[in-house]
Amino acid sequence: MTIDSSLVGTKRLLRVLAGERLETPPIWIMRQAGRYLPEYREIRAQAKTFLDFCYAPSLAAEAVLQPLRRFDLDAAILFSDILVIPDALGRKVEFLEGEGPRLPPLLDETNWRFEDVERAIQRLAPVYETVDRLSKALPAPVTLIGFAGSPWTVATYMLQGQGGEKDRSRRGAYERPEEVDALLELLVEATARHLEAQAKAGAEVLQIFESWAEGLSESLFERVVLKPTTALVKRLRALGVTQPVIGFPRGAGLHYPRYAAETGVNALGLDTSVPVSRLRAFVPKEMALQGNLDPQLLVLGGQPLRDGVAKVLAAFEDRPHIFNLGHGITPEAKPEHVAELVAAVKASAA
Amino acid sequence: MTIDSSLVGTKRLLRVLAGERLETPPIWIMRQAGRYLPEYREIRAQAKTFLDFCYAPSLAAEAVLQPLRRFDLDAAILFSDILVIPDALGRKVEFLEGEGPRLPPLLDETNWRFEDVERAIQRLAPVYETVDRLSKALPAPVTLIGFAGSPWTVATYMLQGQGGEKDRSRRGAYERPEEVDALLELLVEATARHLEAQAKAGAEVLQIFESWAEGLSESLFERVVLKPTTALVKRLRALGVTQPVIGFPRGAGLHYPRYAAETGVNALGLDTSVPVSRLRAFVPKEMALQGNLDPQLLVLGGQPLRDGVAKVLAAFEDRPHIFNLGHGITPEAKPEHVAELVAAVKASAA
Repeated sequence: MTIDSSLVGTKRLLRVLAGERLETPPIWIMRQAGRYLPEYREIRAQAKTFLDFCYAPSLAAEAVLQPLRRFDLDAAILFSDILVIPDALGRKVEFLEGEGPRLPPLLDETNWRFEDVERAIQRLAPVYETVDRLSKALPAPVTLIGFAGSPWTVATYMLQGQGGEKDRSRRGAYERPEEVDALLELLVEATARHLEAQAKAGAEVLQIFESWAEGLSESLFERVVLKPTTALVKRLRALGVTQPVIGFPRGAGLHYPRYAAETGVNALGLDTSVPVSRLRAFVPKEMALQGNLDPQLLVLGGQPLRDGVAKVLAAFEDRPHIFNLGHGITPEAKPEHVAELVAAVKASAA
Repeated sequence: MTIDSSLVGTKRLLRVLAGERLETPPIWIMRQAGRYLPEYREIRAQAKTFLDFCYAPSLAAEAVLQPLRRFDLDAAILFSDILVIPDALGRKVEFLEGEGPRLPPLLDETNWRFEDVERAIQRLAPVYETVDRLSKALPAPVTLIGFAGSPWTVATYMLQGQGGEKDRSRRGAYERPEEVDALLELLVEATARHLEAQAKAGAEVLQIFESWAEGLSESLFERVVLKPTTALVKRLRALGVTQPVIGFPRGAGLHYPRYAAETGVNALGLDTSVPVSRLRAFVPKEMALQGNLDPQLLVLGGQPLRDGVAKVLAAFEDRPHIFNLGHGITPEAKPEHVAELVAAVKASAA
């Protein structure tokens, strides 16, 4: 185990983000607060809509604290949604039970108009209030992570109005390039300001979820992922935000190396399909890697889970590593399997 | 332009598959026979179910010939479906309008039983009859391609009964490893025999569609993609099949290099997201690459299409290249845009 003496006492997640390899990697789980927990489903019923829940600091903060009462996790992530940005920019966002979010597709409209960024960020005050409460409530060793969707990921929902295959958004990017680029620029600014506000409220790490990196040609990836993400990280630094940024370009495949090298993110989230052995050559040795257990193993548990954990630990053994899944935990996952996972990782230096 | 004199007179697609780079690359389009063509929709109505259509040699062969009457394409691909294999193995396969295929999920059952391979291949006689008719009907310069789904891709439909996210199939692979591995072995044999029969009936090239390569951890990719595909190619060669094999592991991302190096396929189909510049280093210089225009550009046409074609041509310019899409053409594509595409590629040496 290597220890940089200047970091002794620092939270474990922050040490790894600073480039240190810990023999027992820190662990947190994407969507660790959420539907797989009965206590979450219980408090969820106290708000009418999902966005109402996200905008209620007492409920959102309580959701974040729930998994920490069950599991020995090294980080907590704000409970919110990537679509609070379009909501704050004046687009109607609805979450349909079992169907995911729905927005009026921008691609059905001409003459796009949005709320200005200053006012949008003011509207999101309850989110920062949640961060503030959490930063005071979290146990000392736990790192608080803020987050946002990447400009392209958020744009795809705004453009075509829903998730699933992003064919229509991609077509929109080809067909209405000036408007889509202007939308991405607006989202860079709004997202930078949103992350800045989270950082000011107490977020110690910021994660950018690029959930629609897949299926993009290299030139489109450059235009809608690399360029806006680079601008976003640069803008954050210009705003004086010093927190480490984890970029998670899920599904980026062979674009991962360029994302790692060009965007300026400090650490890289890896989806389950990333073969760590192959990626290693392209990523600076001190860049922390986060991931990448198959979430389905938390549905199954048992020997497949133990085997999967051992493989992930082995794959990352010579890198600064944050243990996580390769995608969010699913509602079907069993809390007792999460407990098994955390125990297995915590025992990994033994 | 390099010309191997022994290949002069050979069909253009076969020359490229033999490692030659043609200044004007051969072109065909995945799903070039299909719903975007009004004449296809017309003859489709003559069969009750989609499988009835696939099993009617006169209709299936006519569907293959339709796009060749409109466009100057270098290859034609058998009209059939990857799910004829489960159908022939005794699993019920239905195609629901607008919803895709549905099968009774194997994962709901214990004690899996299948028709034996010999009889399954006999049941598929109408498919080979279609190939035979085509091999006699196609214009001389046009190469006839046979195809099958890869073992894992076909298995996913059999395991979870439908397309979409393959979470349940992946979980099945972890949870019931012996049964799933036995299913993959059965599919290796059935698929090898199915491709052999197509080759004997006149198919000059064979393509393996690995449509569910995405989202697999490296160890699962090894187990369910690399191992069965390698076994399939080996078995084909053992059966005396000499036709070149194009492997198309759509969505394989960072697994592409291992797929290219380890499976024994002769050429590689690239999805739209593959950055050719990056892949190049991992693929032998003489291995033909096929792809990878974004299919959405055939919905749009115009300048975005022209730009996209130019980028694809430039990306592959120093490789043996077969022009194609990175995914099947969509029903929304316009036939006139396909004409524009073919004309642009045919003019590319000018």
